[in-house]
Amino acid sequence: MSTVVTTDTVRAAIARDGAGTLLARCGALAKCTDKSGELLRTFLSPAMEQVHQRMRPWFEAAGMTVGADRVGNLRAIYPSISGDDSPRLLIASHLDTVPNAGAYDGVLGVLMGLALVEGLGGRQLPYSIEVIGFSDEEGTRFGLPFIGSRALVSRLDEALLKNKDASGTTISEALRDYGAVHPDSPEPSLAPSASAYLEFHIEQGPVLESKGLALGIVESLASQSRCHLAFYGFAGHAGTTPMILRRDALAAAAEWMTRVEMIASDVEGLVATVGQISAEPGGVNVIPGVVRCSLDVRHAEDAACSAAVKAILNEARAIVARRGITVEAEEYHTQPAVHLDPTMIAIAETSVRQTGYTSMRMTSGAGHDAMVIARHLPSAMIFLRNPGGISHHPDESVLETDVAAAIHAGLCFLDEFALLLRKKGSDLRV
Amino acid sequence: MSTVVTTDTVRAAIARDGAGTLLARCGALAKCTDKSGELLRTFLSPAMEQVHQRMRPWFEAAGMTVGADRVGNLRAIYPSISGDDSPRLLIASHLDTVPNAGAYDGVLGVLMGLALVEGLGGRQLPYSIEVIGFSDEEGTRFGLPFIGSRALVSRLDEALLKNKDASGTTISEALRDYGAVHPDSPEPSLAPSASAYLEFHIEQGPVLESKGLALGIVESLASQSRCHLAFYGFAGHAGTTPMILRRDALAAAAEWMTRVEMIASDVEGLVATVGQISAEPGGVNVIPGVVRCSLDVRHAEDAACSAAVKAILNEARAIVARRGITVEAEEYHTQPAVHLDPTMIAIAETSVRQTGYTSMRMTSGAGHDAMVIARHLPSAMIFLRNPGGISHHPDESVLETDVAAAIHAGLCFLDEFALLLRKKGSDLRV
Repeated sequence: MSTVVTTDTVRAAIARDGAGTLLARCGALAKCTDKSGELLRTFLSPAMEQVHQRMRPWFEAAGMTVGADRVGNLRAIYPSISGDDSPRLLIASHLDTVPNAGAYDGVLGVLMGLALVEGLGGRQLPYSIEVIGFSDEEGTRFGLPFIGSRALVSRLDEALLKNKDASGTTISEALRDYGAVHPDSPEPSLAPSASAYLEFHIEQGPVLESKGLALGIVESLASQSRCHLAFYGFAGHAGTTPMILRRDALAAAAEWMTRVEMIASDVEGLVATVGQISAEPGGVNVIPGVVRCSLDVRHAEDAACSAAVKAILNEARAIVARRGITVEAEEYHTQPAVHLDPTMIAIAETSVRQTGYTSMRMTSGAGHDAMVIARHLPSAMIFLRNPGGISHHPDESVLETDVAAAIHAGLCFLDEFALLLRKKGSDLRV
Repeated sequence: MSTVVTTDTVRAAIARDGAGTLLARCGALAKCTDKSGELLRTFLSPAMEQVHQRMRPWFEAAGMTVGADRVGNLRAIYPSISGDDSPRLLIASHLDTVPNAGAYDGVLGVLMGLALVEGLGGRQLPYSIEVIGFSDEEGTRFGLPFIGSRALVSRLDEALLKNKDASGTTISEALRDYGAVHPDSPEPSLAPSASAYLEFHIEQGPVLESKGLALGIVESLASQSRCHLAFYGFAGHAGTTPMILRRDALAAAAEWMTRVEMIASDVEGLVATVGQISAEPGGVNVIPGVVRCSLDVRHAEDAACSAAVKAILNEARAIVARRGITVEAEEYHTQPAVHLDPTMIAIAETSVRQTGYTSMRMTSGAGHDAMVIARHLPSAMIFLRNPGGISHHPDESVLETDVAAAIHAGLCFLDEFALLLRKKGSDLRV
């Protein structure tokens, strides 16, 4: 085993090879599906079991010990040169998918952990590395996301365990059945030595592509608000009701939607979306009496998100008041922003810079496992460019050169992290 | 029998009595329904047969001969003082309903004919009166409106006769079955002596109420255009796609809908309605990629209607071009305007003035039997105020004082029509 610092020329070559291998593995794992004709892999499903079987020898060949915990998280450990009490870096993402998924969302991040260990070429570091493949992030099976990462950092509560899948099986029953087949699997828990968390993920959006960048450093995961709105006007005959006498719920909603777009466009980093809409009674020749629609608002900062929701709902109230109709709005879900660790962000940025690539700092509008783990460990997230911003779709893709850039940057990160531990000691926890 | 001209004081008293009777009859006939719990009465249905049975004695008591023709139109004739060759005035509307109907749409116009003959108190005029209750105007059973009035003025064509109801019965088969039960019913046809057509109908809109008027004189039935539109943008993640990079089909449709409302509001008498809308894929957290919606445009003049459709669709094209997306629009139905007869309109107006009421001239945005008959006979239509503009709904209503005004005006009309015939001769046909 060599302890000589690997030069960046060598790292770049390792990364190029690793990228090809990683993409081939993504392709192979995409064949492990619970539904013929499309990729669907859910919490504790047969396809998830297949993925574990396919991955095990890869991890073992890289010198890692591999197993699965009691919630089906794949866990592979690469030992430290300094023994079992050394700090530990977690590199993780998820192995489950949405229905009709692409081949990269989640699984790429797990395979990045493997590629980085492989890239060490047997070299050991003054900390251990644990690569985790979370068993559930998308929430496809039980409608609840992050079961894998939540179980890692805290006990799953009783209410959550009672949730049922489409066949009526509870999470509790699914876990019991899994435990019966895997009696030796340990309860999920964060290793006491765990010091930090790193996650690679495709961006699931078009920002990096629009900036011509391969990699982005996530600073925070956005604050999110979801609302239901109902505009109540008066239905009427489309032929016999003059414009001036109408109380058209859809005309009001349309005016409001133009304001939603304007308000969001005026605030840097704010996004607001009306994704669902229906008009009642829904006749071609009937003025809509009721319009129901959804609103999704996100921003890196909680205050900016809630201020935007307030402004958008006030706009709805002003519009209906002017039109002599009414609106009901309910904010049914809020999710505060999660800020990643400034030191980890800085290391990630330095690592990318060492590769010769330029990165940008960005907010993730989507949720990720890092959102759960960041409350317990200093965390960083690196996004890979996602061509066309297409994800959750079979056309989801990633460029091989971008994967190479990520592996190269990741290898730099491993050494930067060793330097950090030397400077700050092992307890990096927040 | 008296030939003394009835004074307006007497007419007003007759009208007041007649209004009470008419509303009671509307209530009684609303109980004749094909569906328990709501009013539904369709072409050639058992409920329609019941209505005929209930009405026959009323017509007979008024000195009329009553029957039904081979398409189920109720036809009641009040003879002329001058014999069978005299001109004939038709007073008609329809006896069928939409599902979950109100008690007045259509049937009120038929009962108005009866009330006017009753109001003559046995007095005969130099022309005969035929009251017709059309068997189908709404098109509820076969999805095709105006079967009754179309059959009166022309042969139903073979293609039309092949249309099927929900149970798979064709119009042809329904007519054959009706003929078997009513073997003596004559083929529908316009009497050669028919000289003019008068129809009373509730407005089915809020205009008269907003002007504080009981009665309106219809000048024309609006030109109508119906279109389907599909806005094609790009679906995307609501959290990860910045506003500037979106191609949101719903945001585009919303902007267009505000323009539809503005364009229609800027042209006197124009109405434009988006009554149906759907967004795909329809997730709360997904930017809509496709929006489909309907457009209904009406105006008294064909040119104004088609110019508005053109302007509205051009607006859609300009909006999508600016947003880098596309739109498809198809005009799938057009109906030219029908203008009623200026002389008949003038008589109707004079008649209302004689009652002491003020009327206004108006365009009917909805279609009526008069639309079909006006192509063959000089026609007039008188609207009664419709409280709240509510029709095609169980809450549909009409004021008893407005019905009295209509009967009073109708009685004046009968005498004015006699004067017209004396001046112009019997051939008033266009």
